Amino acid sequence: MNLARVIGTVVSTRKDPQMGGLKFLLVQPVNPEGQAQGNPVVAVDAVGAGPGEMILYATGSSARQTILTKDRPCDAVIMAIVDNWEVGGQIKYKKGVND
Amino acid sequence: MNLARVIGTVVSTRKDPQMGGLKFLLVQPVNPEGQAQGNPVVAVDAVGAGPGEMILYATGSSARQTILTKDRPCDAVIMAIVDNWEVGGQIKYKKGVND
Amino acid sequence: MNLARVIGTVVSTRKDPQMGGLKFLLVQPVNPEGQAQGNPVVAVDAVGAGPGEMILYATGSSARQTILTKDRPCDAVIMAIVDNWEVGGQIKYKKGVND
Amino acid sequence: MNLARVIGTVVSTRKDPQMGGLKFLLVQPVNPEGQAQGNPVVAVDAVGAGPGEMILYATGSSARQTILTKDRPCDAVIMAIVDNWEVGGQIKYKKGVND
Amino acid sequence: MNLARVIGTVVSTRKDPQMGGLKFLLVQPVNPEGQAQGNPVVAVDAVGAGPGEMILYATGSSARQTILTKDRPCDAVIMAIVDNWEVGGQIKYKKGVND
Repeated sequence: MNLARVIGTVVSTRKDPQMGGLKFLLVQPVNPEGQAQGNPVVAVDAVGAGPGEMILYATGSSARQTILTKDRPCDAVIMAIVDNWEVGGQIKYKKGVND
Repeated sequence: MNLARVIGTVVSTRKDPQMGGLKFLLVQPVNPEGQAQGNPVVAVDAVGAGPGEMILYATGSSARQTILTKDRPCDAVIMAIVDNWEVGGQIKYKKGVND
Repeated sequence: MNLARVIGTVVSTRKDPQMGGLKFLLVQPVNPEGQAQGNPVVAVDAVGAGPGEMILYATGSSARQTILTKDRPCDAVIMAIVDNWEVGGQIKYKKGVND
Repeated sequence: MNLARVIGTVVSTRKDPQMGGLKFLLVQPVNPEGQAQGNPVVAVDAVGAGPGEMILYATGSSARQTILTKDRPCDAVIMAIVDNWEVGGQIKYKKGVND
Repeated sequence: MNLARVIGTVVSTRKDPQMGGLKFLLVQPVNPEGQAQGNPVVAVDAVGAGPGEMILYATGSSARQTILTKDRPCDAVIMAIVDNWEVGGQIKYKKGVND
């Protein structure tokens, strides 16, 4: 999984029928310091994530292991909203503080 | 999934029988600003995408979860045509406006 | 899938029994201009590709969706020989002309 | 699999139900010299790894082949704690010595 | 698949039970000239490869298609030992000569 921040939304009306009802969010991967790193990806939201939130997303076939995404042509899913993380015992991100 | 623009077409007559009847499109991944980023890939079109359109494509085993691509040696599929996307509340792309 | 040119052959006699009878080709990915880009990979040939030919190859589990490669430890397969491709309406490669 | 060092922990209370009870660790990939290389990833711990330990993690669908992670939206799992490794007959890392 | 040279061994006693009895080798990917390129990975040995040998390894779910690795949390497997390879009709590596 990767740490990322929700930075936007993608809207599509003409899509594969199995993608109906799913919400596409743009997420920007971040490094352990919370800084943007690498290219943004589009992930299906399975946990009700909102703009600006730090999340975890899973890719590949693992992105189809949520009830929402099962058997759908989805290769990235937000499966957790992050409360906090620490590196070497030091809190690097805490929800509500480092947003 | 990744945001990308359809930039071309690939034609093949000698191919795996399971790939018969599928349309191969060249797609150029773009960043949230809509600028080309990374290498183009060849994706099967599952939604009737046309040249110049912004799309979403899925990769890996997820690319085989459309009716068209099921059980075929296909590792990238266009599964949505993008209407618009926003970053931080600002529209970055709108179909018909930023084409 | 990726566009690539067949540049060589790999020979192995001591291999997993399930790889018996398969032909390993070295393929060099190319960009839409037909120029080498990225690292060569070794792909199993499922379509009778020859040296110098432009091909499409699929990776991951999708590489096991041909009759030849089913259930085998193969993560890249040549599943199409390319006749031509165009970008923005302009032919960039045509078999027999740009070889 | 990749060699990596456990550098931190990620906490999430709002997550996909299937991720309940799993521990997310931040791991930093290392090269054969034991130096950080590439971006950290978040992996589920299947072997009781602790901070600072050198581990092996597996990605993709293979990350779902442990009892803990089966059928869950998990794309990276720590499946081994490393005792030591050698390159060209020379020990490059030994647990308890190079920590 | 990728061409790589076996450069070392990784030892782990505390690991997922399904990884018991498997041998972890460090392999360094090489380019068609036989030179190191990219980061080393840890692969399970399914063919009895030895130090210094040139091999092919497969990744992802394809790494679980050997008898040894089936259903195990293994994402890279050595599935062939290379005798030789040629590029453009010229032998670039021959076992016993270019070791």
